Amino acid sequence: MSLNIRIVLIQTWHPGNIGAAARAMKNMGLDQLVLVNPVDFPSDEAYNRAGKATDVLDNARIVGSLAEAIGDCNLVIGTSARERSIKLPGFTAEECGREAVQRQQQSPVAIVFGRERMGLHNDDIQQCHAQVNIDANPEYPVLNLSQAVQLICYEVFKAVSDKHAREGSTDAYPLHQDLNRFYEHLETTLEDIDFLNPDHPGQTLDHLRSLFRRAQPTSKELRLLRGVLSAAQKAAGKEDN
Amino acid sequence: MSLNIRIVLIQTWHPGNIGAAARAMKNMGLDQLVLVNPVDFPSDEAYNRAGKATDVLDNARIVGSLAEAIGDCNLVIGTSARERSIKLPGFTAEECGREAVQRQQQSPVAIVFGRERMGLHNDDIQQCHAQVNIDANPEYPVLNLSQAVQLICYEVFKAVSDKHAREGSTDAYPLHQDLNRFYEHLETTLEDIDFLNPDHPGQTLDHLRSLFRRAQPTSKELRLLRGVLSAAQKAAGKEDN
Repeated sequence: MSLNIRIVLIQTWHPGNIGAAARAMKNMGLDQLVLVNPVDFPSDEAYNRAGKATDVLDNARIVGSLAEAIGDCNLVIGTSARERSIKLPGFTAEECGREAVQRQQQSPVAIVFGRERMGLHNDDIQQCHAQVNIDANPEYPVLNLSQAVQLICYEVFKAVSDKHAREGSTDAYPLHQDLNRFYEHLETTLEDIDFLNPDHPGQTLDHLRSLFRRAQPTSKELRLLRGVLSAAQKAAGKEDN
Repeated sequence: MSLNIRIVLIQTWHPGNIGAAARAMKNMGLDQLVLVNPVDFPSDEAYNRAGKATDVLDNARIVGSLAEAIGDCNLVIGTSARERSIKLPGFTAEECGREAVQRQQQSPVAIVFGRERMGLHNDDIQQCHAQVNIDANPEYPVLNLSQAVQLICYEVFKAVSDKHAREGSTDAYPLHQDLNRFYEHLETTLEDIDFLNPDHPGQTLDHLRSLFRRAQPTSKELRLLRGVLSAAQKAAGKEDN
């Protein structure tokens, strides 16, 4: 298993966090570490904290800008504990793991972690396609950097294991964009069958979205659901979309 | 939210790991830390690594034996990366989170972490009722102690959120017979909109049933889904059932 997922750490202050992140990555089967302007690296402390993941540090790529770190990636996910003014599609850690594993089959995926105290700046976020928020205690939601890396890598590892288990059954998960298209199709259909008033949609769609999110439909199931929606539109005398 | 779940660390060598564990706990809403014979505690390094979780360290209980740490617990789960000769019921991290959250409602639950290099000894394991294994890269499965604490506490937090989401909305689960009525309604509707041929239904309904089974709709969500079905029937010019 070699995953085309890179962990990008921006301007890390404590070299210990870099070492701990490398170990967390290797524990979960990831090996591509990119450091954007690390404050103190290479350093003994990073190596001390890396355990048996010194190879991840040896092979770490050091670059001068986030743009350089992610230039060849088609999916860049920024991690953030805070709400942002820039609205990006938001993932839970679990969704981030699944999406990254799915998308790295086509092209490199980057998961980007900000500075220890400041997180990602707005101009970093602007280079991301999606954002992941790790659910945590609202009274103290800020995780140590290497712990955040650990949780995200863990969800990646779980997604890989889950995928292998499912591929036994030849059925993959849909991409985020396919899910979004399904939700759009759902909304149109509910309007077409007069269940939803476009002027007063209320929370109906949110409730349905949360239901389907829990169900985690596979690609095959999603096609089935969209077939049902198209049939309902047709029966209502509306044209299929 | 105050959970009756304690994190027990046995003979921790590095005080930094104790501090990092305290932060990981607080980030995930846990606050009961018990230290069995810590090698170096209290220490500045523990406090340096604890971030804003110094209260967890201040309130940590220090004891001389594992027995003392867990005497009042009805569920004691030991963490271990290795297979053991003593066979205990085994949890994944996710199952551990759910089980701990469920069981702490009755009496205290302990999750026990061993020494940095040695893990739990056999006589520690003998005092546990179950074992949790964190799935990891088989080539390097040994996580840093505080990272293991982070992952377990994260799964506890997820189990709590999931439980609240289900209970907080005062929303109960439907009875088996209500689910069956929904599946019948679904079948009729799929026929009404010409998605399903009653003479050759194929496996469509089985697939949809398995999807909804995974989603575990609440009673409220089930009413919403039945509303959608009725609207589709009406739009198809068929009578509501």
